[in-house]
Amino acid sequence: MERRLLHTPEGVRDIYNMECARKRVLQENLQDLLKKYGYHAIETPTFEFFDIFSKEIGTTPSKDLYKFFDREGNTLVLRPDMTPSIARCVAKYYGDEEFPVRLCYMGNTFINNDSYQGRLKETTQLGAELVGDDSVAADAEVLALVVDSLKTAGLSEFQIGVGHMDFFRGLVQAANLEERLEQELIALISNKNFFGVEELVDSLQLSGSLKELFSMLGNLCMTDGMMNRAKELSAGFPVILKALERLESLMQALSCYGVEKYVTVELGMVSSYYYYTGIIFSGYTFGSGEPIVKGGRYNNLMDYFGKHAPSIGFAVVIDQLLAALARQKIDIPAENNQTLIVYRREKQQEAIARAVSLREQNLGAALVCWADGKTEEDYRSYAERMHTQALMFIE
Amino acid sequence: MERRLLHTPEGVRDIYNMECARKRVLQENLQDLLKKYGYHAIETPTFEFFDIFSKEIGTTPSKDLYKFFDREGNTLVLRPDMTPSIARCVAKYYGDEEFPVRLCYMGNTFINNDSYQGRLKETTQLGAELVGDDSVAADAEVLALVVDSLKTAGLSEFQIGVGHMDFFRGLVQAANLEERLEQELIALISNKNFFGVEELVDSLQLSGSLKELFSMLGNLCMTDGMMNRAKELSAGFPVILKALERLESLMQALSCYGVEKYVTVELGMVSSYYYYTGIIFSGYTFGSGEPIVKGGRYNNLMDYFGKHAPSIGFAVVIDQLLAALARQKIDIPAENNQTLIVYRREKQQEAIARAVSLREQNLGAALVCWADGKTEEDYRSYAERMHTQALMFIE
Repeated sequence: MERRLLHTPEGVRDIYNMECARKRVLQENLQDLLKKYGYHAIETPTFEFFDIFSKEIGTTPSKDLYKFFDREGNTLVLRPDMTPSIARCVAKYYGDEEFPVRLCYMGNTFINNDSYQGRLKETTQLGAELVGDDSVAADAEVLALVVDSLKTAGLSEFQIGVGHMDFFRGLVQAANLEERLEQELIALISNKNFFGVEELVDSLQLSGSLKELFSMLGNLCMTDGMMNRAKELSAGFPVILKALERLESLMQALSCYGVEKYVTVELGMVSSYYYYTGIIFSGYTFGSGEPIVKGGRYNNLMDYFGKHAPSIGFAVVIDQLLAALARQKIDIPAENNQTLIVYRREKQQEAIARAVSLREQNLGAALVCWADGKTEEDYRSYAERMHTQALMFIE
Repeated sequence: MERRLLHTPEGVRDIYNMECARKRVLQENLQDLLKKYGYHAIETPTFEFFDIFSKEIGTTPSKDLYKFFDREGNTLVLRPDMTPSIARCVAKYYGDEEFPVRLCYMGNTFINNDSYQGRLKETTQLGAELVGDDSVAADAEVLALVVDSLKTAGLSEFQIGVGHMDFFRGLVQAANLEERLEQELIALISNKNFFGVEELVDSLQLSGSLKELFSMLGNLCMTDGMMNRAKELSAGFPVILKALERLESLMQALSCYGVEKYVTVELGMVSSYYYYTGIIFSGYTFGSGEPIVKGGRYNNLMDYFGKHAPSIGFAVVIDQLLAALARQKIDIPAENNQTLIVYRREKQQEAIARAVSLREQNLGAALVCWADGKTEEDYRSYAERMHTQALMFIE
């Protein structure tokens, strides 16, 4: 009975001790960065009406949502993703704003995925949304901010893959693929099974150019030469061509920020979020199998809530980022200026005065009254367990 | 349809714009303060197994919990309160620690109360738990920290009422009250219906001393003289006497911290949380009908999870505190050093360079490209709506 009581449900966890201290510092540093880029903090409820995350919105499938009822019988959902909630807020509070709105958030999201995947079901996400700006400059700002976020976190080696929803959509259209094959193709690409992609494509009756374009889905780093070749091949496919040109302009714009070396064009980038309409991206580093950051452009999502505002945003998955930093042995410098003050009972007044004075100097002080039978050594090892930097005895 | 989509469920809300900025600053200031007192941050999952918040634990009644199922059919609960989760963590991660453990947290809690009460169902709580210390010094530290928290938040006028679970329990025992009457009495006290209390007490066959002690339940500020009188009256009731003596020692200890003027003894203090065993308290200020802070000592809660560790803790209800600060027109100084840079398309490179340079100086900069047909005036009013401090045109 007791053992069972100590357990947390599958896929969620406690964060404590130095890991929690590091998480706090990481979050603060990233929030400061978003603020420096002009993003305003917003908080939305942990649960919302089901409609906000319904199939039409195109976020997490219904079977993977945590659902429950309110007293009136409405279905409520723990948010799986922040973007639909932010879209709702923009329509509600910034409905008449004709200029860009920059919003950022930090909060927990919940996906009830199958346990065998071993994934976290509750993750902390920190992200930003640049609303009401359809320009390449907006795409570039968001990607520059993504790179800056990961550098601020302490990473030096990471890669952001950027694709465009219309490259894949354009191919499907041009090849006139039925939905079953499209889904199969998405699954193959998501699993990076490019041999399977090739097999599937070979089985279709396609023109040479189309076949070659399909083969580019497996290319994880398109060079300028390859991009030119892709544009040549897509002369007859305007949707694909436009996507390629957008990606090219984006790469040029990124050089204004000096971040182009962290970004590669990955034409096979797909997303399970159907609300994405343009640029999509995800960022990886070693030490995390899951992406540490993901995002994209969603030009139509807000229409659903009654406002037209082309937008782009991203979310850093704090838990994945923390795990990657730990595995790469990159320290998050969490300030430690704590003193443990051990005092004899009759010196309590003096001990409190010392603690107050340390705190006034912006230092930390924890008080403990010397217990009968305990030695200095006992308190030394206690101070170590509590990660206090200094130890003071008042006898 | 659209209007419905913009709604949040009853009792939860969006926080945005300056209110959100102020909330962030308030939270950061309070977190810094808890750290200075030596408290270590901990995070627990948003939902837990039902058992953690079951009737035996003595937190929120089951009917007021948000419940749902995991894929295995276990009942999960959105945490209504942090203390049981922290107690679980202490038993799990600090099971062998024989010295005090100081933990602090910030997170959202969920109570599915009847909507007609108009209360928030999701609130942000920030709190601290001093675990494994049964001393008056521990009670005093926690109350001093409560006072310091409210002063740090910017309040100058507030009052913390402190009571003791055993004063009421002792009275019920001494009067041999049946449970029905006890519940009735709790309800009357909670509603501050002291006339009703008097009526009920008059209807019982009680000794003169007991009757006088019962009448003290309605006293919201016990003076030293009254405390002495109460001790005299409770000579034959050791449980009550001990509670009074503990309160007296606490008031003395608080003077070491110089915070006694914020604290009054309120013998009628009761709590719906059954896990409290000793000192209990709640703090009020004008501008909030609900308490802005609440807490108490819980010496047996952790036994339920397999560790004996007498503890005391508190939680600040950030939402109530924010509301009170707003109504008292107390400003939370949120730093604003944002510049809006409006640039002509051909000056993009220069504009980005200016933004990067401002950010390097730890200032904020948001970029916007001058749109066709818009005037300087349009951007001035946009900058105002976005609360940016400065405006820069690059033409």
